[in-house]
Amino acid sequence: MEPSRYASYQQQIFRRGLAGELPPFTVEPEGLEESARRRLGPGPFAYVYGPAGAGTTMRANREAFDRWRIVPRMLTKSTTRYLATTVLGTPMPAPVLVAPLGVQSILHPEGELATARAAAELGLTMVLSTMSSFGIEEVAEASGAGPRWFQLYWPNDDDLTISLLNRAKAAGYTVLVVTLDTMSVAWRPSILDKAYLPMLRGTGIGVFFTDPVFRSQLARSPEEDLDAAVAQWDRMLGSAGRAWDELGFLREHWDGPIVIKGVTHVDDARQAAACGLDGVIVSNHGGRQVDGAIAALDVLPEIVDAVGDRMSVLFDSGIRTGADALKALAIGAEAVLIGRPFAYGLGHAGQLGVTHVLRSLLADLELTMGLSGYTRLRELTRDALRHQP
Amino acid sequence: MEPSRYASYQQQIFRRGLAGELPPFTVEPEGLEESARRRLGPGPFAYVYGPAGAGTTMRANREAFDRWRIVPRMLTKSTTRYLATTVLGTPMPAPVLVAPLGVQSILHPEGELATARAAAELGLTMVLSTMSSFGIEEVAEASGAGPRWFQLYWPNDDDLTISLLNRAKAAGYTVLVVTLDTMSVAWRPSILDKAYLPMLRGTGIGVFFTDPVFRSQLARSPEEDLDAAVAQWDRMLGSAGRAWDELGFLREHWDGPIVIKGVTHVDDARQAAACGLDGVIVSNHGGRQVDGAIAALDVLPEIVDAVGDRMSVLFDSGIRTGADALKALAIGAEAVLIGRPFAYGLGHAGQLGVTHVLRSLLADLELTMGLSGYTRLRELTRDALRHQP
Amino acid sequence: MEPSRYASYQQQIFRRGLAGELPPFTVEPEGLEESARRRLGPGPFAYVYGPAGAGTTMRANREAFDRWRIVPRMLTKSTTRYLATTVLGTPMPAPVLVAPLGVQSILHPEGELATARAAAELGLTMVLSTMSSFGIEEVAEASGAGPRWFQLYWPNDDDLTISLLNRAKAAGYTVLVVTLDTMSVAWRPSILDKAYLPMLRGTGIGVFFTDPVFRSQLARSPEEDLDAAVAQWDRMLGSAGRAWDELGFLREHWDGPIVIKGVTHVDDARQAAACGLDGVIVSNHGGRQVDGAIAALDVLPEIVDAVGDRMSVLFDSGIRTGADALKALAIGAEAVLIGRPFAYGLGHAGQLGVTHVLRSLLADLELTMGLSGYTRLRELTRDALRHQP
Amino acid sequence: MEPSRYASYQQQIFRRGLAGELPPFTVEPEGLEESARRRLGPGPFAYVYGPAGAGTTMRANREAFDRWRIVPRMLTKSTTRYLATTVLGTPMPAPVLVAPLGVQSILHPEGELATARAAAELGLTMVLSTMSSFGIEEVAEASGAGPRWFQLYWPNDDDLTISLLNRAKAAGYTVLVVTLDTMSVAWRPSILDKAYLPMLRGTGIGVFFTDPVFRSQLARSPEEDLDAAVAQWDRMLGSAGRAWDELGFLREHWDGPIVIKGVTHVDDARQAAACGLDGVIVSNHGGRQVDGAIAALDVLPEIVDAVGDRMSVLFDSGIRTGADALKALAIGAEAVLIGRPFAYGLGHAGQLGVTHVLRSLLADLELTMGLSGYTRLRELTRDALRHQP
Repeated sequence: MEPSRYASYQQQIFRRGLAGELPPFTVEPEGLEESARRRLGPGPFAYVYGPAGAGTTMRANREAFDRWRIVPRMLTKSTTRYLATTVLGTPMPAPVLVAPLGVQSILHPEGELATARAAAELGLTMVLSTMSSFGIEEVAEASGAGPRWFQLYWPNDDDLTISLLNRAKAAGYTVLVVTLDTMSVAWRPSILDKAYLPMLRGTGIGVFFTDPVFRSQLARSPEEDLDAAVAQWDRMLGSAGRAWDELGFLREHWDGPIVIKGVTHVDDARQAAACGLDGVIVSNHGGRQVDGAIAALDVLPEIVDAVGDRMSVLFDSGIRTGADALKALAIGAEAVLIGRPFAYGLGHAGQLGVTHVLRSLLADLELTMGLSGYTRLRELTRDALRHQP
Repeated sequence: MEPSRYASYQQQIFRRGLAGELPPFTVEPEGLEESARRRLGPGPFAYVYGPAGAGTTMRANREAFDRWRIVPRMLTKSTTRYLATTVLGTPMPAPVLVAPLGVQSILHPEGELATARAAAELGLTMVLSTMSSFGIEEVAEASGAGPRWFQLYWPNDDDLTISLLNRAKAAGYTVLVVTLDTMSVAWRPSILDKAYLPMLRGTGIGVFFTDPVFRSQLARSPEEDLDAAVAQWDRMLGSAGRAWDELGFLREHWDGPIVIKGVTHVDDARQAAACGLDGVIVSNHGGRQVDGAIAALDVLPEIVDAVGDRMSVLFDSGIRTGADALKALAIGAEAVLIGRPFAYGLGHAGQLGVTHVLRSLLADLELTMGLSGYTRLRELTRDALRHQP
Repeated sequence: MEPSRYASYQQQIFRRGLAGELPPFTVEPEGLEESARRRLGPGPFAYVYGPAGAGTTMRANREAFDRWRIVPRMLTKSTTRYLATTVLGTPMPAPVLVAPLGVQSILHPEGELATARAAAELGLTMVLSTMSSFGIEEVAEASGAGPRWFQLYWPNDDDLTISLLNRAKAAGYTVLVVTLDTMSVAWRPSILDKAYLPMLRGTGIGVFFTDPVFRSQLARSPEEDLDAAVAQWDRMLGSAGRAWDELGFLREHWDGPIVIKGVTHVDDARQAAACGLDGVIVSNHGGRQVDGAIAALDVLPEIVDAVGDRMSVLFDSGIRTGADALKALAIGAEAVLIGRPFAYGLGHAGQLGVTHVLRSLLADLELTMGLSGYTRLRELTRDALRHQP
Repeated sequence: MEPSRYASYQQQIFRRGLAGELPPFTVEPEGLEESARRRLGPGPFAYVYGPAGAGTTMRANREAFDRWRIVPRMLTKSTTRYLATTVLGTPMPAPVLVAPLGVQSILHPEGELATARAAAELGLTMVLSTMSSFGIEEVAEASGAGPRWFQLYWPNDDDLTISLLNRAKAAGYTVLVVTLDTMSVAWRPSILDKAYLPMLRGTGIGVFFTDPVFRSQLARSPEEDLDAAVAQWDRMLGSAGRAWDELGFLREHWDGPIVIKGVTHVDDARQAAACGLDGVIVSNHGGRQVDGAIAALDVLPEIVDAVGDRMSVLFDSGIRTGADALKALAIGAEAVLIGRPFAYGLGHAGQLGVTHVLRSLLADLELTMGLSGYTRLRELTRDALRHQP
């Protein structure tokens, strides 16, 4: 196994600095958000940032990390670090995935294509959203040899669902991520204040508009009658309640691993295991769905303890630094997903911006791991941490 | 029972956004307060905002919600939500009432009339304050078929009290809410700094000035001698201490349900039950009376546990979002009252402003309930929450 | 016993407001500090405000109040409140004293004279500082019939000490308050940054310069040689360590009650009781002496429990509102001392400013007491509170 | 033993104030940082300030002090304070050392020379960094008779290591401080944003460039080929993992006491004791290495308890005030190291600036100790504190 070389990004920044060149934009976690606010303008920024309700869960997600403290070990010869892992059959150079985020063309004209190229450049797995601005196949092509998973917002229509799954399989997406926490979009004040979701319209809804089943359901093509296509899209995605016993349908039409995203109750994780699912992503959608919900990190330990021996547990919601990732991994997550930060990077500078953000996070993670005294992922256990409630 | 359709307000905002129309004003809870500060000017804003003392209880009210976290459930088929309920005989499309607030003409010329129309538009119960700028009957007429309760600041004079009760009954108010925590106005620095209460004078004190008993006690009518009328009003409302054994008087003159408002001590709730009252509203007046008082939400569990099986327990003080309402309901409140937010809405845009605020809160509540995995109010129990002290 | 009429100050402000007259300056606790910062200018403001070190204890003093919450009672007929009490033989209309503060002429030309007049106007006890700008007798004259205590910074010189005690007795000061926590001034950055203590020089050190013993120790009078007088004053007040067994000297030369101020360790309180002292003032000098010291309120309960049955326990450090005072009293303090707020009032408007601040606090206290359901001081026990650590 | 006279710095500031002279710059801990931000400009400021990651550990270091509160004792005759001590054979007038900090010429042209002169002026021990801008011998000469310790970043090359140790011994450095927590520089966003480490290049790396072994390894001298010299330096300091069993090498080549710096895990401290080391410095590098790491003060008690009877335990990370130092000493540290504050002083005004900062801290410490009731260091135990988690 090759050791990681992410830390070299730090050296690269310093070397370029000698030539008078600064990083493309800030690497400070809070500074990045402020910079994105200025760069993107209020509407697109709100699209990424916009928490549900009063933002209490978004903040709670961050504060939960402060209650776990790393206690570094010295003299462990941890100068070489191995971050590579395999999650649900997908080899990963580091336990970090690019989280699904829809309609990325709001942030940059190249949208998901830029993100896919950036992820592929680093060998990271991109999770493509059902709400992608670009079609499943286009993004797969941009991903090239890069690993990719497909995230599903489960449509009301079985034929359309099957079509999406088939297209994803055909395009090389290996794992299906079913998002459960967003049967409808939550009340997100900062987005509502700007009436921002209609911007979706201008940016297109690539996955659907390129789908043969979806198109076959329209009297006229989206190109001819955009309004009717959007209305049909709305109906397809409209809130169809789903139940545990319906998951069999997905299993039937998807032969790879299936993961559910949005789990924060331990009994739901147990149910997922009982249903034979392959994994859960502990997530509260970055505080964008149920405001007042518990911090995702606060439930990670109990979910790992309950089902970690039977299925993959991944973590999403609040990761901003290498230390955050290390804490989630040490608690027991197999990998973590990065959301807002990469989106801010995309908004700053397209593919280059996403790469800059991801490289920074990976460098930070590798350095933090080594400086904490660890060489291999499997050494990261709760013994590396102290809980300070 | 009809499912709720409050969530459609979100869709409506998005649809209007397509036509380039923004919401009338912000739906961000903190933004609303800041916007009201600018819109209303210092005096009227202080009237609504103004906490007692140093504002510690006002802040504590909000912080208490952060100690209860929702733990959403997935795949429960909660796309259809039923929020309708009946509280003390009053059918409510959702367990949300418009809290009593006096002298609303300080905020908008149409004052309580606008609020009554907005509440009626949504079928919500308005609790009319004894200190209404407009007469009991006028507001009832504005309410139309809308449900209405009457809030009593208990005058010193029995004849006047009986007159008020009779008028309220005649005008269709079905429940009597007796506010106990305000035998006099507290020390509210932000109001005092602007010497603001005298503005009451300019706006009139409709309930009293339209009362035959009150008028009969004056040598000259309020129209002829405002000073004397105000002085008499002051005497009538001046701090008459009341005791538990006097509640029988109200029972004698009011044949509908009687609720007391301002209870935060569990023994007071027990006493209320022992007295045969029909309900208590757990409230500290939004932190406007006793600064340093315990957060209202902090005492809700013990009061529900002590008397919830014998009487209605409602909650007031600090509700700003759908998640807040859901938490209070899950702890055991039958319904919640909304104060400052609707008043800010009134100050922004009269009836339309109140409607906008209430629709936003109801949409948020319905969405939060569904996204948390719940379909019916009775499913909301403390199992939906985790307490994180 | 007469009921208190402090709440009428609220009515007075409102009445004056009808005539278009605003309060002389803000009654908001935090606003008062900010207003004083602007009004006084950096030097004099720092003199009053300036905490020790990084200000952590000053802030801790305030935060400690938040951990005690009032749980108001309803329907107790508490419209009439009796605040009068007697502490160490001094009748007080309310359990509130004006804390000792030196060199008040830094804040206003009339300094302690204005403060004495304001206290006397309200019947409150003023505690005159050894470091008063004006002589003991002058201030006594300004106090008139008003009750007064004398605070001692214990000089190195016995003759001078005896002289001060005799003058205080002769001038009608009834209780001796010996401040223990200030054998030297602490490291107070905001004062040091402005090299501010030298301003003492310009304002004179009245108590000493008017003292016959002090003058007899000078070769030339202060009027002739200010430098020498200041140097002598410095020597007299310079840090002479004192021990418990020396307190007998004070008892020998003072026949009234003796109280020590600056106690926060329960063993020191026990020692004080064992020495036969009459009282302790639990205080950390408002966070102006030992930064990092425990909040004064945090030690009040244990000190009350340890010695409250044998001696008077008073409280100082952090009182800003009526609720704060009520909490200290309910925990078991016989009375509280008010420091910075009255000094800010003095800086704003001399005697009128002190009166305004004290009346505001008393009105707030009386209203808070009544609205919490209490009529008499003796009803205020820890049952009125809940501790929320 | 002579009593300390540090408190006189307070008097000196006041005396100078009489002549209209203000302190050279602020003595407020937070103000100092803000002032340095303005004075130094973004790059040099970031060099000193720059925390790892999101700065959570830097802030946690400070917050940990708030959980320990001093409970002062009265009437202990603590007007005379003895701060002198001996740590690992080095006599110290106070238990305070100047922490190692590299490349101080970034902050002031005289860099470590100015710091050495300031430390020597006060008799304090300076810990010279391996990364000093100036050579080991130059700084020793500037130190004169002042005590000095040498901090080692352990090079990859044994000959070079031996050369550094020999030079340090020859130049009068008595204790070897081996920093373990920085085998490579962490991800420090505020430094990376300014690509600031290349500034090292301009300022030279004195210790290495003056080293005969280092020079012998170069084809051309640093004066002739700076790039090659920097590259070689990079290789020498590049991350060679070290293990516990390698410490014997240092013992072999250093006959004085050896201390390791950067320990926060109690088992590492035990291991150090088992290895026969002479001391540990509990430190997380001021939050500059592992963000998310536990606050240094939070682990001090357990490390003192585990190894304090067998080796010297010193403390570093977060000391800003005299109270902070007193708390660390009372918990059981033999001495504390001061980092950022002296560096800010250096940046403000060279030697004078360092002296001003150190004198201020020592005055604060002495005053705090006396005002807390203590005369001698050995009286400072945990009984002086209360832990408030």
